Amino acid sequence: MDAALDQIAARAAAAARPFAQTTPRARAAALVAVADALDQNAAELIAIAIRETGLTEPRLTGEVRRTSNQLRLFAEVIVDGAYLDARIDDADPEYVIGPRPDVRRVLEPVGPVLNFAASNFPFAFSVAGGDSAAALAAGCPLIVKTHSGHPELSRRTGEIVAAALAGAGMPDGVFQVVAGQQAGVELLKDDRIRAGAFTGSTHVGRLLADIAASRPRPIPFFGELGSVNPAYATAGAIAAEPDLLQGFLGSVAGSAGQLCTKPGFLFVPQGAELGPVGEAAATVPEHRLLNPGIGRAFEERRGAVLAAPGVTVLAEGEVRVDDAQQRFATPTVVEVDLATLREHRDDLLEESFGPLSIIVRYADADELPAVQRDLFPGNLTSTLHASEAELADGRLADLVDALAETSGRVLFGGWPTGVSVTGAMQHGGPYPATTTDATSVGTAAITRFLRGVAYQSAPQSLLPAPLRDDNPWGVPQRRSTAGRSAGWGTLTGHH
Amino acid sequence: MDAALDQIAARAAAAARPFAQTTPRARAAALVAVADALDQNAAELIAIAIRETGLTEPRLTGEVRRTSNQLRLFAEVIVDGAYLDARIDDADPEYVIGPRPDVRRVLEPVGPVLNFAASNFPFAFSVAGGDSAAALAAGCPLIVKTHSGHPELSRRTGEIVAAALAGAGMPDGVFQVVAGQQAGVELLKDDRIRAGAFTGSTHVGRLLADIAASRPRPIPFFGELGSVNPAYATAGAIAAEPDLLQGFLGSVAGSAGQLCTKPGFLFVPQGAELGPVGEAAATVPEHRLLNPGIGRAFEERRGAVLAAPGVTVLAEGEVRVDDAQQRFATPTVVEVDLATLREHRDDLLEESFGPLSIIVRYADADELPAVQRDLFPGNLTSTLHASEAELADGRLADLVDALAETSGRVLFGGWPTGVSVTGAMQHGGPYPATTTDATSVGTAAITRFLRGVAYQSAPQSLLPAPLRDDNPWGVPQRRSTAGRSAGWGTLTGHH
Repeated sequence: MDAALDQIAARAAAAARPFAQTTPRARAAALVAVADALDQNAAELIAIAIRETGLTEPRLTGEVRRTSNQLRLFAEVIVDGAYLDARIDDADPEYVIGPRPDVRRVLEPVGPVLNFAASNFPFAFSVAGGDSAAALAAGCPLIVKTHSGHPELSRRTGEIVAAALAGAGMPDGVFQVVAGQQAGVELLKDDRIRAGAFTGSTHVGRLLADIAASRPRPIPFFGELGSVNPAYATAGAIAAEPDLLQGFLGSVAGSAGQLCTKPGFLFVPQGAELGPVGEAAATVPEHRLLNPGIGRAFEERRGAVLAAPGVTVLAEGEVRVDDAQQRFATPTVVEVDLATLREHRDDLLEESFGPLSIIVRYADADELPAVQRDLFPGNLTSTLHASEAELADGRLADLVDALAETSGRVLFGGWPTGVSVTGAMQHGGPYPATTTDATSVGTAAITRFLRGVAYQSAPQSLLPAPLRDDNPWGVPQRRSTAGRSAGWGTLTGHH
Repeated sequence: MDAALDQIAARAAAAARPFAQTTPRARAAALVAVADALDQNAAELIAIAIRETGLTEPRLTGEVRRTSNQLRLFAEVIVDGAYLDARIDDADPEYVIGPRPDVRRVLEPVGPVLNFAASNFPFAFSVAGGDSAAALAAGCPLIVKTHSGHPELSRRTGEIVAAALAGAGMPDGVFQVVAGQQAGVELLKDDRIRAGAFTGSTHVGRLLADIAASRPRPIPFFGELGSVNPAYATAGAIAAEPDLLQGFLGSVAGSAGQLCTKPGFLFVPQGAELGPVGEAAATVPEHRLLNPGIGRAFEERRGAVLAAPGVTVLAEGEVRVDDAQQRFATPTVVEVDLATLREHRDDLLEESFGPLSIIVRYADADELPAVQRDLFPGNLTSTLHASEAELADGRLADLVDALAETSGRVLFGGWPTGVSVTGAMQHGGPYPATTTDATSVGTAAITRFLRGVAYQSAPQSLLPAPLRDDNPWGVPQRRSTAGRSAGWGTLTGHH
């Protein structure tokens, strides 16, 4: 490791203790300062992002708003304090399992976090994105390995974030950026880094996860990798939802299909009239792919799908290359029957990162639970479109079970793109959707960067604030008083 | 994989759905039935355990009580329902980050769990132990890979547990036992197994963790490996605690030191009078080590410590071998100065699994935080003995920080052996104490076997019970109503 990189790791390590000792109110104020700074500089940042990523101004404007608001959401979460899961067991000489000392437990930051930024959300999953917000909210010094797809935006966002954190009085070293694959890998191997986060491809994510797992001291690695997000439409839904096709195409083609929750498969009953797919797809304007590498990969993947035996092309779409090797695409939609999908699963099941989706015709709805369990064992999302009558009569219960077993989020109607950043969101599912089952979106994402520490028979003056009897931060405390039969306790202190 | 083993995995996989659909009340009743059955058969089981492990009747009697009561504790936890972390975000067209659909999230069982039983707690960390209780409470089918050190006890306990679960109406296949290292490894590689748990040595635990991480679909592996549990005594504590030496020796020698929280190091100021270590140690009767393999390993480890340069022997202890190759030991206590410990760290820092501890003399208490951070980066516990005046005046704050950064549990006075099974317990710390920071003791252990699933715009009839508006199980629900600025919500439904 060269001296500059070593110093970055050293600064993060040195910041761990002072940062852990900041109050939630101070960290919340810092997160809000970052949010405000992003909003104030939005016009400049969006202009850079349009140039570097080819994403549209409306999309990027919404993404900045999402990014600044998720920083504010984490500010609320840490001030509330429920995320600390503070538990107090009073001493109890008569405790059923033997005399019990005073034991108190709280979640504390794990230490320096290395976050590998994504290509496809230059704000929301990049330098100041969700993983960064969660790590900083938890009190973990953060190093962001920026994505090569938007270098100037990363540099400028990094300056803005660093200035806002410093202006809010956060300790030196709590936020740093590095560029380049080698720097990322070397830091991931460094003992001073205590957790990794990643959003990107299954191939790269797995390489990094394996590095994290094979360190002398392994660390948790929270990778959000690949997902094909199957959607199922019943006969009832086809009849009841005239805008189903438009909704599907909008979700497939939005941001040129470069979204981790893009529906890669739509299951439709044989013979059901879905509407004029080719005609509808032809109204979607071409959209640039994020960068030449992603464009090339999409072109190859699209070629493989179009060439697979048994595939009927409904909308061929187009991929145009410009002089700078940027590619511009319109949506490709093909159709197969279920037997073909099963037979050519090795060609067809891989994620297509771009505006391509596969419609699968099925004969028997009773087959669908087994299809999901067999072909789609790990997804960020799965979607079910059915009529109210079908949902009500119980016949879909097994399919819903199958979707829940294999997915982080199950949607009833609607489309999976456009992930709501909220308390109940789950953006993470069985492998390869994520490397662990943890969520990387929503307030539960903060728990990835926390670990439990118990204090036994500690004097009040040496306890962390959330565990003190006087509860100076007013956080929820789950208290088990002496004389109860077990240790689960009663919640107090919630405001 | 042979047909019998394949069938075991198939039965666990088939049980996943019906088990996940049992109510917490039904699972709680089943856990209580297991607890009652253990208590009713305690005399028979303890007799087998004495023979197979060499542990004493009082110790084993207490351990059965702990084991049955931790099953009852998990029964309380699941009926309470707070562990489900149910979150409901009402739909909100005016949500600050964009229109929000109705999203609800609950923790659901991960699926079949493989639990590798430990040698040193033939009840509490074995067939019906804490990991088993947590997995069953979570609703995960369980396969226990039994420990070769107590085969008959494992077989008999397995029969009792299986009968109790069946009698309580739990689905077929929710609980199975297998024996043998090869069976354990093959199952750990099997895609039907969704999480692993382990208590044992760093060497074996790391091998298994690496297998879990290198599967085509990696799974979480919760291993509790090694810990030397440093304890620090200040000058004030030596003066104020006349029974410090007795307490220390009791914790070192109890169960022949074969406890994962045994204090392997006690730091004492140079010149402070700790008392007659050799004389006190000589009053401890010899105690059998668990099995010939552990006995042999302890004998070797003790030899290495006694032979290390700069070591002063305070209590030499003894290791006696009988005809069956069982070893019987009395406590060994040696003393080194801090410089010697640093110089010979490769010889001295390794865990000694048996009745051996190292007293370290230090010159300057201000050095101790750096000592802990440098020499002891990952521990289940760390212990501080100091006077009330020393604790009150703030001089120990940095040491307490260092202990919390590097340990799962920090004790103020007392000794780390005898882990209380309670809501606030943390039995897990930075590697190698555990492979993840999760706890394997206490009610928080259940979260290891759960994953978040979100339901978007779901009809009430297809929602899991904890997410329904009518809340039939009466679990705590964190609800974020429309019109609030963010998604953290308000807790309702707690009883």
